[in-house]
Amino acid sequence: MTRQLLFDNIRRRKSFLCVGLDSDIRKLPKHLLENEDDPVFAFNRAIIDATADVCVAYKPNLAFYECNGLAGWKSYERTIQYLHNHYPTHFVIADAKRGDIGNTSQMYARSFFEEQDVDAVTVAPYMGEDSVTPFLGYAGKWVVMLALTSNKGSLDFQLLEDKDGERLFEKVLRTSLGWGNEHNTMYVVGATRGSLFADVRRIVPRHFLLVPGVGAQGGSLEEVCRYGMNDACGLLVNSSRGIIFADSTEHFADVAREKAAELQKQMENLLRERGLL
Amino acid sequence: MTRQLLFDNIRRRKSFLCVGLDSDIRKLPKHLLENEDDPVFAFNRAIIDATADVCVAYKPNLAFYECNGLAGWKSYERTIQYLHNHYPTHFVIADAKRGDIGNTSQMYARSFFEEQDVDAVTVAPYMGEDSVTPFLGYAGKWVVMLALTSNKGSLDFQLLEDKDGERLFEKVLRTSLGWGNEHNTMYVVGATRGSLFADVRRIVPRHFLLVPGVGAQGGSLEEVCRYGMNDACGLLVNSSRGIIFADSTEHFADVAREKAAELQKQMENLLRERGLL
Repeated sequence: MTRQLLFDNIRRRKSFLCVGLDSDIRKLPKHLLENEDDPVFAFNRAIIDATADVCVAYKPNLAFYECNGLAGWKSYERTIQYLHNHYPTHFVIADAKRGDIGNTSQMYARSFFEEQDVDAVTVAPYMGEDSVTPFLGYAGKWVVMLALTSNKGSLDFQLLEDKDGERLFEKVLRTSLGWGNEHNTMYVVGATRGSLFADVRRIVPRHFLLVPGVGAQGGSLEEVCRYGMNDACGLLVNSSRGIIFADSTEHFADVAREKAAELQKQMENLLRERGLL
Repeated sequence: MTRQLLFDNIRRRKSFLCVGLDSDIRKLPKHLLENEDDPVFAFNRAIIDATADVCVAYKPNLAFYECNGLAGWKSYERTIQYLHNHYPTHFVIADAKRGDIGNTSQMYARSFFEEQDVDAVTVAPYMGEDSVTPFLGYAGKWVVMLALTSNKGSLDFQLLEDKDGERLFEKVLRTSLGWGNEHNTMYVVGATRGSLFADVRRIVPRHFLLVPGVGAQGGSLEEVCRYGMNDACGLLVNSSRGIIFADSTEHFADVAREKAAELQKQMENLLRERGLL
């Protein structure tokens, strides 16, 4: 999906919400576990059907599928296929945090972009250029590179300053500008990072940012938008647990929709304030 | 597997070789592709049977399985199961380069250590403490953290110096000493890094290092040992392509064994020189 199409979808749905499919089998509603052959897929399908018109992206987190072995891999593939078949204009991010030496990253790129045909994959930058560039050779596909993550541990290394006062996340942003551009690269910046968004935007004013950490992790949507929004929106804000596990009864999908719609309403207002609608 | 047991196995087999199962389906011998239902597993089984007595560890690289989707996941699981059943004293490293926020890393840890029951998993440190510690709570299991990798891109960020002259890989080593110890943590240090091994050993003298980059990537085994070996050997040296794809005829397993045995002989000499045999 091109940057322009993504922005068009954001305007059409008045939303830059990404729903994170962290579909932990241990947290699924009991009735699905008891009655469904593939409860993870059944859960995802219901969540997707309930939220598709208030979001623009889905982000399955591979960890929650891999931990179920073969059955998990199947649930994941069926979810991707379901999205392709029924919601082809939704942006699909495989949240896999991959990254390895060139020949291995090449295999991951093939896997995600040719076999699964998802739109984007999250990649860790620690191993540098040749671990990232194999993902950049696919038209309409995206690398989403970790820059400044939402977790506590992000403080361990990402804020380290070099001799010139440049922090590691800034070095990652600046260096990777030499590898790709705003049409094939996004960055993960955690919603919990507040005013650091301004520092991110100084280096990558035009790129899309994937923003986890609103909801369960405590980040503020208003603050993210104040510092992070650009004139093509430039934000995909993810919420996972706050939407998909808001309720664990037979009404889980309705409640998930309510939670997603609440965020969509806030997003619509923020897009209007910015003059993007 | 405990550190002591690993060292015992190294002395018994006179080898600290890890065979990398980067079993790219496009490079498999033709007769396997034509005659086998699961050519990747058939290939791995033959490689394992041919090399088990000259190595102490196997390292399947997940990228080369994932890219085949469900079938690939099956090949991977069958390989792990085969190792458990036939070679239970070999150390098995899932080369997955995982690492995510705490609750997600917890799922990966469950997947690798409870479901698959491998001995170790490679983890990227970029996201810091809570992305790594979930892997440390399993007795006899290991995190293998990226420190100084063998690829060209490793120069992009891993050698960055902070204001006090400490480089990022050194910061990763030093900081992670507060999370684990030499009984549950190893580090990836590329064979192409030569004398930097001495800098690594200044910070982590007792830890095991997983060393890729001998063979196809050009690193020197002698140099690695000169700077990196400690009194429990402290090294697992990996070779993948240089062993498993040394020949693509029906004799591939025999040739793989020859290549592995050559490395084992060199390793035996190096262990003797050091007085460890």
